[in-house]
Amino acid sequence: MEISYTPIGRVRSPYDTPEDVIHDEVSETGGEVVLEEEYEAGLEGIDGFSHIVVFAHLDEINESQLTARPPHVDDLEVGVFATRSPHRPTPLAQTVVELLERDGTTLRVRGLDLVDGTPILDVKPYVPLVDEEDVSVGWFEDR
Amino acid sequence: MEISYTPIGRVRSPYDTPEDVIHDEVSETGGEVVLEEEYEAGLEGIDGFSHIVVFAHLDEINESQLTARPPHVDDLEVGVFATRSPHRPTPLAQTVVELLERDGTTLRVRGLDLVDGTPILDVKPYVPLVDEEDVSVGWFEDR
Repeated sequence: MEISYTPIGRVRSPYDTPEDVIHDEVSETGGEVVLEEEYEAGLEGIDGFSHIVVFAHLDEINESQLTARPPHVDDLEVGVFATRSPHRPTPLAQTVVELLERDGTTLRVRGLDLVDGTPILDVKPYVPLVDEEDVSVGWFEDR
Repeated sequence: MEISYTPIGRVRSPYDTPEDVIHDEVSETGGEVVLEEEYEAGLEGIDGFSHIVVFAHLDEINESQLTARPPHVDDLEVGVFATRSPHRPTPLAQTVVELLERDGTTLRVRGLDLVDGTPILDVKPYVPLVDEEDVSVGWFEDR
């Protein structure tokens, strides 16, 4: 069974390749989420949200692995589904970015870890649905 | 341009159709996220996380709309990208569920809003990355 999606837009980012994405600089990285013109009505009301979630297809990632070594944690290897590593069976990225401004179908954002031209599959509002006190985050505590 | 994914597993849920999903009961709805056996190594270490994010293809949703009327808010119509409505250009669901137990490639979870048999595209750990004080949530404040 195959599932097919058509991208709804593209990312504009200062990063040209996955190797250019510097983990510690991502939170300050500005860029744009540019949807096709036909989707403009779908963005009505998004301006009220401080953050959005961008779902993107990592088209420059060719290698899939079942384990990953998270950055900032020495000597740790865990299953890829316990990480956000891009080298995963389905190369689907979920990136939470700060929404700075909307101009038509162009969203100016901050916090991008995606490379220029990455196809966008979906955009959703970021809403914290889980009380932080109830969350435990495994190896991520030690990073 | 078409992007093709192969599902990595299926949801087991008490809901048979999208109409069965009762918004107010979702937080208590138990079920299973069952990955194919070949992905077992990819789940190593996921047990340390209290919550996971399930990415699924809404294969029973046929209708795409650019606007949506969120539940629990009277007389509001907003762009679909400012909502989590399933009737969107790319029928991709992102569901945060509580992880109760793992048995091989079967994850017992709570908080499911997906129907039985829904194809799973990806699983990631849930990590709150944005300080809640910095988040504003548009129309969702009024729900």
